[in-house]
Amino acid sequence: MKIGVDIISGERDPLELVEGALEAVAEEKDITVVLIGPKETYQQILEKLQHRKRYPSHVLERIDFLHAAEVVTMEDDPLNVMKQKKDASIYVGLRAHKEKQIDAFFSPGNTGAIVVAAALILGRVKGVKKPALATFMPNIEGKANILLDVGASAQCEAQDYVKFCVMGEIYSREMLGVEKPRIGLLNIGEEEHKGTQEMKGVYKTLKELPLNFIGNVEGGDIFGTKADVIVCDGYIGNIALKTAEGAAKAISKLLKSAIKRRLLALLGLPLYMGAIAELKEKTDPERYGGAPLLGVNGNVYIGHGASGKDAIRYGIKAAARAVRHEVLAKIHTELEDFHLV
Amino acid sequence: MKIGVDIISGERDPLELVEGALEAVAEEKDITVVLIGPKETYQQILEKLQHRKRYPSHVLERIDFLHAAEVVTMEDDPLNVMKQKKDASIYVGLRAHKEKQIDAFFSPGNTGAIVVAAALILGRVKGVKKPALATFMPNIEGKANILLDVGASAQCEAQDYVKFCVMGEIYSREMLGVEKPRIGLLNIGEEEHKGTQEMKGVYKTLKELPLNFIGNVEGGDIFGTKADVIVCDGYIGNIALKTAEGAAKAISKLLKSAIKRRLLALLGLPLYMGAIAELKEKTDPERYGGAPLLGVNGNVYIGHGASGKDAIRYGIKAAARAVRHEVLAKIHTELEDFHLV
Repeated sequence: MKIGVDIISGERDPLELVEGALEAVAEEKDITVVLIGPKETYQQILEKLQHRKRYPSHVLERIDFLHAAEVVTMEDDPLNVMKQKKDASIYVGLRAHKEKQIDAFFSPGNTGAIVVAAALILGRVKGVKKPALATFMPNIEGKANILLDVGASAQCEAQDYVKFCVMGEIYSREMLGVEKPRIGLLNIGEEEHKGTQEMKGVYKTLKELPLNFIGNVEGGDIFGTKADVIVCDGYIGNIALKTAEGAAKAISKLLKSAIKRRLLALLGLPLYMGAIAELKEKTDPERYGGAPLLGVNGNVYIGHGASGKDAIRYGIKAAARAVRHEVLAKIHTELEDFHLV
Repeated sequence: MKIGVDIISGERDPLELVEGALEAVAEEKDITVVLIGPKETYQQILEKLQHRKRYPSHVLERIDFLHAAEVVTMEDDPLNVMKQKKDASIYVGLRAHKEKQIDAFFSPGNTGAIVVAAALILGRVKGVKKPALATFMPNIEGKANILLDVGASAQCEAQDYVKFCVMGEIYSREMLGVEKPRIGLLNIGEEEHKGTQEMKGVYKTLKELPLNFIGNVEGGDIFGTKADVIVCDGYIGNIALKTAEGAAKAISKLLKSAIKRRLLALLGLPLYMGAIAELKEKTDPERYGGAPLLGVNGNVYIGHGASGKDAIRYGIKAAARAVRHEVLAKIHTELEDFHLV
């Protein structure tokens, strides 16, 4: 299978991204990675890599390239940039996916631009009005829950939540191996009558689904073991995601300074740093490989702008797993089976 | 000044709450605490305290009592319980505040019930349609930012956000001593055009205020140093608050297990536990004393249901500071000065 990787839209050195791609290819025998970006950038990377000669030929043979003359920046307006930069890597990648030259597309670029373009170029899955960006959130057991939408669709209606449930459920099952994922609705209290009038209506609708809907959950449950999939609109989800990231960063910083101030700190520091590093790895959403954009007619993964080597490596592996497990086809089928198209 | 403390609506043993009140009274020479709850509960506590004889008479003299025959539970419906339990501690306390028998009221009880009752019994500040529950959030510098609303008013209009800005700004100035508090609007991106149509309208309105409005901020900025006051509606705020609490809990748990698994763990553990304890104290919102309900015509503080001795102690001290600094009068005056009434 072929996984397209946008090497030019992120914030890091494209060389790092290519190294991540090489590692993924080395680890997964059935994939070829198609790097997407400007020819000149690719040539420069090739030169640098030749001096290193670290990668065996069976790996290098499974690296392909697709030229994209332009780049969408993080500052570009998602709604207008598509007309202005037709040949940007995001669009080249999505068109290649549409034409089945690649089986999945990963980009660490402008989220809004990718969401808009994916819906336009690939179209949406039948029955889905709004796509959802899903993300893995670490839980207190060191495993992960799925939170969606975290930023693709800011305002949603009950029927959009229904689709989020179906897509999230499939994703949890196929990507994390959860047998019968428990789905919770993110709200400001557990009881059915909690939240706005709108949320009460959503609750009622989700209760009727032939899924394992467990009712309302609260912000803290994102990291708990009560629900495997947590659904919300993209506005709430984005704020929850960034709040969680911010809290983690603040805690890590405060903890480090608390440790440094203590007697014996020098003695104990390596120990904590090891533990903090382990924690960081465990709570790093990137190890689950970026955020899939569910509901569009394709396998699209959006990474952080700061995605480096590991993020790309994990992203490619996650995309490959989604292709192998036929997540997209299963979303189609399940929506039809539930008469939701 | 007299601070009323509801000793019966929380989840902890009332004795603990009374001990917190005694400590606050011992530390602050100008306050008397009026304990509010059932007579029998109070008598039992008095007996237990007599056996301990730890508190000097100048402290015990400044402990007063007000009988409340009933209790609002966490499960009671905020909208209906007031009719059913007229003599519950929440209502007795708020009525005593209305009649100026006490200068402030602290309760660790049912948040919804207190919000509803405070607006009905005390009335709202002129110009304020929706009250806001404010909370202190620890930031990466070990200081605190103010986040409001975290749960009093789920759906808000631009004019409600305006009042949140004014009230939050005064609270930051008077309670934390921030000279010219920077106010941010919680949104899903920093640029003015980010978020829903509604949020763009709110942004435009806030920009016109004679306050230090710095624009949109994101979830992570709740713990940052960019803004001192962060405004949002109570739905978003509640989810952000609980997400942050959940993330902190998960991180602490994962970190503990990461350290325990390491070699030399026994050696380093006490050191690390000290650091964790310091972190916990630093990030504990309770040390700032519960959440003030701003916008009602009184000084009302709502604590966590699980508020123990320290939470009560800090809550009383915060309420006393708010009374000393005349926060309520300043909210009145500033809203008038800005022609917002």
